[in-house]
Amino acid sequence: MRTPDPEPAGEDPFGPPKGNVSNPAWLSEIELAEARRRLPMLYVEAVPVRTDGMGQVVEVGILLRATPVGEIVRTIVSGRVRYGETIRHLENDLGPMAFPLLPPQPVPFTVAEYFPLPGVSPFHDDRQHAVSLAFVVPVTGTCEPRQDALEVTWLTPEEASSDALAAEMEGGRGTLVRLALASVGALR
Amino acid sequence: MRTPDPEPAGEDPFGPPKGNVSNPAWLSEIELAEARRRLPMLYVEAVPVRTDGMGQVVEVGILLRATPVGEIVRTIVSGRVRYGETIRHLENDLGPMAFPLLPPQPVPFTVAEYFPLPGVSPFHDDRQHAVSLAFVVPVTGTCEPRQDALEVTWLTPEEASSDALAAEMEGGRGTLVRLALASVGALR
Amino acid sequence: MRTPDPEPAGEDPFGPPKGNVSNPAWLSEIELAEARRRLPMLYVEAVPVRTDGMGQVVEVGILLRATPVGEIVRTIVSGRVRYGETIRHLENDLGPMAFPLLPPQPVPFTVAEYFPLPGVSPFHDDRQHAVSLAFVVPVTGTCEPRQDALEVTWLTPEEASSDALAAEMEGGRGTLVRLALASVGALR
Amino acid sequence: MRTPDPEPAGEDPFGPPKGNVSNPAWLSEIELAEARRRLPMLYVEAVPVRTDGMGQVVEVGILLRATPVGEIVRTIVSGRVRYGETIRHLENDLGPMAFPLLPPQPVPFTVAEYFPLPGVSPFHDDRQHAVSLAFVVPVTGTCEPRQDALEVTWLTPEEASSDALAAEMEGGRGTLVRLALASVGALR
Repeated sequence: MRTPDPEPAGEDPFGPPKGNVSNPAWLSEIELAEARRRLPMLYVEAVPVRTDGMGQVVEVGILLRATPVGEIVRTIVSGRVRYGETIRHLENDLGPMAFPLLPPQPVPFTVAEYFPLPGVSPFHDDRQHAVSLAFVVPVTGTCEPRQDALEVTWLTPEEASSDALAAEMEGGRGTLVRLALASVGALR
Repeated sequence: MRTPDPEPAGEDPFGPPKGNVSNPAWLSEIELAEARRRLPMLYVEAVPVRTDGMGQVVEVGILLRATPVGEIVRTIVSGRVRYGETIRHLENDLGPMAFPLLPPQPVPFTVAEYFPLPGVSPFHDDRQHAVSLAFVVPVTGTCEPRQDALEVTWLTPEEASSDALAAEMEGGRGTLVRLALASVGALR
Repeated sequence: MRTPDPEPAGEDPFGPPKGNVSNPAWLSEIELAEARRRLPMLYVEAVPVRTDGMGQVVEVGILLRATPVGEIVRTIVSGRVRYGETIRHLENDLGPMAFPLLPPQPVPFTVAEYFPLPGVSPFHDDRQHAVSLAFVVPVTGTCEPRQDALEVTWLTPEEASSDALAAEMEGGRGTLVRLALASVGALR
Repeated sequence: MRTPDPEPAGEDPFGPPKGNVSNPAWLSEIELAEARRRLPMLYVEAVPVRTDGMGQVVEVGILLRATPVGEIVRTIVSGRVRYGETIRHLENDLGPMAFPLLPPQPVPFTVAEYFPLPGVSPFHDDRQHAVSLAFVVPVTGTCEPRQDALEVTWLTPEEASSDALAAEMEGGRGTLVRLALASVGALR
């Protein structure tokens, strides 16, 4: 099972970047792994949508990803909240050309609780206990999440909420997409 | 006390427009007055806001209006929902150059109940029992509400939520502005 | 197609009750029919739920009803908002033994717009343009809606959100039930 | 400045309790202090309220607390989310006799971001970067938060949203109380 913050091969997104080696907020992979066994990790998940002139959702962006073992799964744009960062920093996760229309409301449509053990909640994540603030984000540009293994597919609300899609999504995120669509009145 | 849908002098916004005289949904002033004594009237109220690049509210649009007796009061953009119209039609009320970023969420931040008798709820309206769906609407252009007697003033969230402003607002709408700001995390 | 405020045979719920004949807010059936051709009607719809000790929804109350032509349809508890009545008056609609735990939040989970013509929105009502404020209401007792033709069936969230149930519900209310469940995190 | 999870004297709530010494999720004080320098900490804050029969908020529970240096401050019931615990576990924080009516909605009224540096957001916490999911929780019993230094005072919504109270509250929580009241329509 995959997790919400994939580290692309050949890069350590949580390690100390050049020039910041003394920043105590940067975690080595070992330290991050240790923290994951002891603390809930905080994430932001973003469901990018495209809307028509009346604000109605017409398309939903879902990620396509190949796992290390070659399986193709679908997931949702996400990013771990780093020390000192506001939860409103979604640009990194959506890519520089997304041009999100960040809504003034700071309230997520749901708080998804991922537990290592399936069945405790609708969501699970083998690797950790994660708590995710999930937002619907209207975008006007193109989404290019930073993880190179990922590609965004744009689906209609009907496709995005189908059982077929839910079956392909990891960690129970098919439910998350439905909750996202429901929160904007786009679930049928 | 004023009401949420002022009829500017010399115009009957609820009467039959030219070419539509046989539309049964158009009400004469007498019919509208009659309906107001017997049915709750449905309104949409819009609090226009301007946001910064992070989606934080930096300005709030409040209406300034002269009453028939020459009093200056402040109020909120509003419009009665007409037969057959969706509640998402805010363009008429905000003006053609508002360029609202209509949020995909169809849920109002509050439902304000206006009763003819003050004290039943925080909101009152001498003329009628009105139920108003109140939305925060980020705009990127200029607001020119259709009522010629009105002018939009842009205030900071602090000014808009002050006791001084609340005292100038009609029908308890100072409370509505505070609820609007709270719903977008802009109330201190 | 049925409407959200069925009049049980042998009773005129909108006519003047004994002792109130002079109340101008009471509408005769003819007057109500006339108003329906010209004004949007305001409703409250309530999805009663039973919750476990943690507040999680375990059962959803859906109405079963026989139409005048003998068809069995499913629908949702609803009531028209009368002149002078607050939207919080749900007791009449849920029955005297419902003991609802009225939530302090006055915000509906959605505003459902019913148009006479199917397809304009997800919801339609042959008889009128209705705007409905839809709430999830936890109840601790038994629901006995006033309309004698109705019976409440308690379903699991899974049953209540199934395609099979949606197909039996009138006016698109299968969508409304799903939005209700989504708003309380009980949609999978 | 105080923090949202006071450790009462003579007890280390984050240390390994008897019989659980090998549970890797328990943090020593040193480990917790270390984590606080590197990761955002996740909290739940609960604003307990008492409601009348219609669900309207009539009282708000605010904590009174003496700081180590003898200052009296006001704050809000809160608890750090532990590894493996759901955010719905509020009993520990409200006390065993609170009998909360946990709402079925899993969505907080706001997400409060506390930064060590004042001014970054409306909320600050000298000790850490904390992200808090803030809920309004109707209670039917008495609140006895576990921290012995604390006492709950019940205030009217007007008192709880006053400038005088806000001035006494630590870390900007006066704003949080106002947002809580606004979310339930109890702010004027």
